[in-house]
Amino acid sequence: MNPLELRKAFPILDQQVNGHPLVYLDNAASSQKPRSVIDAIVRYYEHDNANVHRGVHTLASRATDAYEGARAKVAKFLNAASEREIVFTRGTTTALNIVARSWARAALREGDEIVLMPMEHHANLIPWQQAAKATGAVLRYIPMQPDGTIRLSDVEATLTDRTKIVSVTHVSNVLGVVNPVKEIAALAHKRGAVMVVDGAQSAPHMKVDVRDLDCDFYAFSGHKMCGPTGIGVLYGKRELLEQMEPVEYGGEMIEHVDYYDATWKEAPWRFEGGTPIIAGAVGLAAAIDFLTEIGMDNIDRHSEALARYAYDRLSEIEGVTLYGPREGRVCLVTFNLDDVHPHDVATVLDTEGVAIRAGHHCCQPLMRKLEVTATARASFYLYNTEEDVERLAAALIKAKEFFGHAIG
Amino acid sequence: MNPLELRKAFPILDQQVNGHPLVYLDNAASSQKPRSVIDAIVRYYEHDNANVHRGVHTLASRATDAYEGARAKVAKFLNAASEREIVFTRGTTTALNIVARSWARAALREGDEIVLMPMEHHANLIPWQQAAKATGAVLRYIPMQPDGTIRLSDVEATLTDRTKIVSVTHVSNVLGVVNPVKEIAALAHKRGAVMVVDGAQSAPHMKVDVRDLDCDFYAFSGHKMCGPTGIGVLYGKRELLEQMEPVEYGGEMIEHVDYYDATWKEAPWRFEGGTPIIAGAVGLAAAIDFLTEIGMDNIDRHSEALARYAYDRLSEIEGVTLYGPREGRVCLVTFNLDDVHPHDVATVLDTEGVAIRAGHHCCQPLMRKLEVTATARASFYLYNTEEDVERLAAALIKAKEFFGHAIG
Repeated sequence: MNPLELRKAFPILDQQVNGHPLVYLDNAASSQKPRSVIDAIVRYYEHDNANVHRGVHTLASRATDAYEGARAKVAKFLNAASEREIVFTRGTTTALNIVARSWARAALREGDEIVLMPMEHHANLIPWQQAAKATGAVLRYIPMQPDGTIRLSDVEATLTDRTKIVSVTHVSNVLGVVNPVKEIAALAHKRGAVMVVDGAQSAPHMKVDVRDLDCDFYAFSGHKMCGPTGIGVLYGKRELLEQMEPVEYGGEMIEHVDYYDATWKEAPWRFEGGTPIIAGAVGLAAAIDFLTEIGMDNIDRHSEALARYAYDRLSEIEGVTLYGPREGRVCLVTFNLDDVHPHDVATVLDTEGVAIRAGHHCCQPLMRKLEVTATARASFYLYNTEEDVERLAAALIKAKEFFGHAIG
Repeated sequence: MNPLELRKAFPILDQQVNGHPLVYLDNAASSQKPRSVIDAIVRYYEHDNANVHRGVHTLASRATDAYEGARAKVAKFLNAASEREIVFTRGTTTALNIVARSWARAALREGDEIVLMPMEHHANLIPWQQAAKATGAVLRYIPMQPDGTIRLSDVEATLTDRTKIVSVTHVSNVLGVVNPVKEIAALAHKRGAVMVVDGAQSAPHMKVDVRDLDCDFYAFSGHKMCGPTGIGVLYGKRELLEQMEPVEYGGEMIEHVDYYDATWKEAPWRFEGGTPIIAGAVGLAAAIDFLTEIGMDNIDRHSEALARYAYDRLSEIEGVTLYGPREGRVCLVTFNLDDVHPHDVATVLDTEGVAIRAGHHCCQPLMRKLEVTATARASFYLYNTEEDVERLAAALIKAKEFFGHAIG
């Protein structure tokens, strides 16, 4: 795997920003798209576009084959037992909301427990807060170590016979830590709880085998893994999806409708009311082809090596505070520089052509646990190199000088 | 306006299907995309792609400008009072579900009435059935004339002081009839009810001025009006949107989050949790530019003229039954041919390169009112011509001969 070769596939990376070659280190927010994904979308609109499922004409058949073919591709990518376990959604957020709205609100009773971690993204936190409010269930949090890791003994101690749902992030979008979701799933199942995994940051970076993890639900977004915006996936075990009520109602998800009532199609279609995000699914399928050809294991190794390289390199810069562990980290580093607000750090880095993110990263509770209001974050993908990390380090040293002068 | 010139802008139309030049008459299901829309999506991914709102780097600023610029463009397209009244959604279905899930379930009490028409698409029917079930409200239907039109006196007679919501389609996707939504809105408001308009089939074909219509909510999809799949709009009056709870929870829609509770941003952003459909909004903005340059009034006149031409032309074919009125019709004709199943009609037409739709068109209750299980439908857009209607008529005559032989 050669990132310098791979980056040639990404037209957007070949540009100057503020007079410098772009170094794009905001991949945890959204990744860039290779030529093959853009081409697949264009090809769809130029040759095959039509509405799916109900049509008998040629274009409608081609569009349906493309859309359902994308579903089969996602199933294989996740090693799901069947494409019937793959629901296309707008993204991770919608996927997690479907579980919290449909499965959880039907299953939860007063006093039941939903178990999360302190590092959850708002998308894997607020839907559960609202499900708890609606049902009288309570939220419980697995304690986190100071370095941002989770001990399995703490997971075990948090679970009880009232635990009905364990919903945790696979990879933290702030700490970069990879959580032991397979082991957590086993502990959850021992208590009879359902295991939900927020895969927004893991699907792009590592081989995910939902049957090996034995999670009940797994959610991810296309746009963070070389795919288009507006498409994501909810994987759910078939016996669970079949029990669930739809959360949106409309065309394409029904069996029979009269003036006062309606019945639903089988899963996954009952969750896909209305015209689906057809070109998005086509683009996601092309992204999966692109990633699979490189090899998810290669991407994983690269992601881990680059995260560690960046962690070590930034550790050398005086005044930099890094968050999360050195070991067991993938895809990103999160940090602060002296007392400079991270937005100001990001602004100065942008003048050097280095794109990073600053803010609470949709993890306000975690920020308070880290005793900061915000952090800077540099996040990597398959096209990033050690040279990019050096550009980041050099820009940070410039920022430090800039603010040193400005403050001092 | 010259449809033959305009169709050159649509790459997909320049193809052979089953040995014949494609005649695409399935526009009510999904329209085709002009080069300028495809190019806008490509340009976004090749130059500006990043996540929106939270970023301070150059690409994030450009992506945010593109996304919020699209919102301003939609507001102008609808003559909304403010871009704060424009919520981006996955499509019409999601837009209507938001109103039925959030506004309606909070406002409705047992015995309150929701008023619909018999011709509603499932997307403007099932969400209300479910809202009624959840709240004890009841559905009432405005009687429909045999020709598929609605009389205002019947609207008036259906509304009562218990009517809280009137939700009707602007243009029927089966009958092609344009409903007097401005007058219905006035009657609804006289009763203190909220007026919701399903604009899926009107936004593509006519100038829509939400302030002139004085509707409270208006929903449409991008993909039926030259835009990409997976993007739609909910227009809502600001004072209503600001009262409404979000239906999905995640990043980007919050103000403040702690471990056990959260507060929301103002509308429209509280309804857009998670990474939005950024490239979809960019494509929709390009579609609006394309349509606006042609002129919505020109498109409207063309749509009406072609629908009437098709109605008259098909009337001449023995054995064809047409549904809906001759007058006050836009964009489509719906019909059956003798006792041939419409799927078989569509299949034969496809062998002639003519793409039409057959089925219940997501209007099962209306089908039963028309005393059919399904119909054929030919639906037009700005690139269709009288020549296309002649191709349709010729193919229908061939189908008639084919089935005449097969049956006889």
